[in-house]
Amino acid sequence: MNNFTYHNPTKIIFGEGTIETIGREIPKDARILMTYGGGSIKNNGVYEQVKNALKGHTLFEFGGIEANPQYSTLMKAVEVCRKENISFLLAVGGGSVIDGTKFIATAVFFEGEAWDILTKNAKTDKFVPLAAILTLPATGSEMNGFGVISRKETGQKLAFGRPPFTNPVFSVLDPTVTKTLSPRQRGNGVVDAFIHVTEQYMTYPSNSPVQDRYAESLLKTLIEVGPEYYPDPENMEAAKNLIWAATMALNGNLSCGVPVDWATHSIGHELTVLEGIDHGRTLAIVWPGMMHVMRDTKREKLLQYACRVWGITDGSDDERIDAAIRKTEEFFHSVSVPTRLSDYRLGKEVIGKVVANLKNNGFTTLGEKRLVTPEKVAEILTNRL
Amino acid sequence: MNNFTYHNPTKIIFGEGTIETIGREIPKDARILMTYGGGSIKNNGVYEQVKNALKGHTLFEFGGIEANPQYSTLMKAVEVCRKENISFLLAVGGGSVIDGTKFIATAVFFEGEAWDILTKNAKTDKFVPLAAILTLPATGSEMNGFGVISRKETGQKLAFGRPPFTNPVFSVLDPTVTKTLSPRQRGNGVVDAFIHVTEQYMTYPSNSPVQDRYAESLLKTLIEVGPEYYPDPENMEAAKNLIWAATMALNGNLSCGVPVDWATHSIGHELTVLEGIDHGRTLAIVWPGMMHVMRDTKREKLLQYACRVWGITDGSDDERIDAAIRKTEEFFHSVSVPTRLSDYRLGKEVIGKVVANLKNNGFTTLGEKRLVTPEKVAEILTNRL
Repeated sequence: MNNFTYHNPTKIIFGEGTIETIGREIPKDARILMTYGGGSIKNNGVYEQVKNALKGHTLFEFGGIEANPQYSTLMKAVEVCRKENISFLLAVGGGSVIDGTKFIATAVFFEGEAWDILTKNAKTDKFVPLAAILTLPATGSEMNGFGVISRKETGQKLAFGRPPFTNPVFSVLDPTVTKTLSPRQRGNGVVDAFIHVTEQYMTYPSNSPVQDRYAESLLKTLIEVGPEYYPDPENMEAAKNLIWAATMALNGNLSCGVPVDWATHSIGHELTVLEGIDHGRTLAIVWPGMMHVMRDTKREKLLQYACRVWGITDGSDDERIDAAIRKTEEFFHSVSVPTRLSDYRLGKEVIGKVVANLKNNGFTTLGEKRLVTPEKVAEILTNRL
Repeated sequence: MNNFTYHNPTKIIFGEGTIETIGREIPKDARILMTYGGGSIKNNGVYEQVKNALKGHTLFEFGGIEANPQYSTLMKAVEVCRKENISFLLAVGGGSVIDGTKFIATAVFFEGEAWDILTKNAKTDKFVPLAAILTLPATGSEMNGFGVISRKETGQKLAFGRPPFTNPVFSVLDPTVTKTLSPRQRGNGVVDAFIHVTEQYMTYPSNSPVQDRYAESLLKTLIEVGPEYYPDPENMEAAKNLIWAATMALNGNLSCGVPVDWATHSIGHELTVLEGIDHGRTLAIVWPGMMHVMRDTKREKLLQYACRVWGITDGSDDERIDAAIRKTEEFFHSVSVPTRLSDYRLGKEVIGKVVANLKNNGFTTLGEKRLVTPEKVAEILTNRL
């Protein structure tokens, strides 16, 4: 196990009916900007719940943060913050709204071109505190300090973070909000959480048995709960367990002292930028290919995954790895998430575009050992045709 | 899963050589009181390391906090804090020193008889911030807001907490400090961490698969690593994994939304108060009896424990439970921790005293369903003769 620092000050408020408690979590004299997405919160009652819970507070709002939140949209919110002297941000939404709000929180006091925060890791020293009301379990953004921001004009989708300043002060995880999610959102969320775990687990052994077993705990729970949660919006027990697994999947705990990968995310981001495929769905395409092509680098962990997560013990090493990849794909299919480029009518022409975009964004080698070269990316995507 | 709130702002600084980094974690203008125990930190180099790391800071010290920290000792430290206008407490030690320092942090600004904080849950509203340098992995106090304080004059040992104010701001977990622990301290620590997990896991099913599997992850790791860590002070890989498991065992994460027990701790505390048995060793006595006597209340979880933690699948329900109890005792023995009252030359005369003391301290029924009555306590201890 390597040396590490772990610090996650986000307070989690979990359970049915908890949105109504947020009034006491935010200072009475705060000037709050509620941020949200396309307006689904106005249809499912969450908007009203938040307004009621914050009666007596000074509340502004900024809607229209899109999936894959756009720099240009977020900078409009930054302007609102500056003009209205906002002192607290309340993100009401899924990963995109929360990620975008983290960026707003970071950019408000930043002087100069805020895009430099993403491209140049520009120094920042003052932040607007933020909190979140989660409406879509998937990204884990509700309990970490990181976000991913997109810029259509330049074809970029880049990550940033300033934890603990960009960690939500608190996040409300109320399972009832999942009732109105679409099947597609539900399935995507299950896969997204799953891949967050594998990115921190499926690398090479580092004698970290707690972290390994915690990762396997989440994978097994997602495999068990995902297919119960996906088809049944009324199953609150499944929703609770899915939410908790997704939150724990990316709160920094799994990656304490261990090597991490994140190549699947980097490649997936390009598929989103280039072809508009939902984030979770890009991961379901790339990950089986990553396991297939990088099997030598990941061999010991792949065999451990096959055994401990899927109970696969028969056959040669490669047969067990192949069986685990098959099981993983079947699991994604069980929540109706496709796993091949051809499912999106994409052929090999996309491969060169992805490789070129990765290079343009400075990602020449990826993965826990930097062995995912452009050639390997092409091989991985060829496996996914 | 029940509704819950989880908030753990303690920053963990983990790894070899990390003590030297604490200077930057504490404000330059702080007036620091370093608290410690019987002086072992002066023999193992930690005292010097801390002094060096805090050159340029204003540093006072208070040694002599005993195992099972005494109210009278801690109140002397409170006086030092008041007199010297201390603004930061740095606990350098194991669970007793850290627990005691949490109490000091709470009592400094408390007006009136500070013992009321323990017996009457007296209102407190201002705290001295504290941090910890852990020297003995066992109690998990380094990453939670709780402590247990003793008072010899009255025969009491009571828990308190004011999280997040009594959470360490940061805790340093450097595995090299374990090199000078005695075998007895090492074995006790393994058992203590193990029982922290079972107190939050072995209750009744609540459809909380993440929490269950996280608990099983820690139990399996302790079973695997404990016997490597116990006999070999130079095995830093084992020490790291033992420390991390012990810290995760009681940082509040396992108990999110699930029923908890803590009856074994309550009974164990009386054995410490009455007979002076080390805390971890009292748990090793009580817990096998708790599983034996409360097997109907805990049946489903006991069977799950037998299967998932020990791989026991043959035999009737009761045979599997008996086998799991046997395995648990063997595990405690593997780190040289005895499991019977007779190992301490105690006979049935102690049983009435424990039951009477529990009643005196207001603990008439214990456990996750309050079914551990005084009669059951007697039955449990009779099983442990």
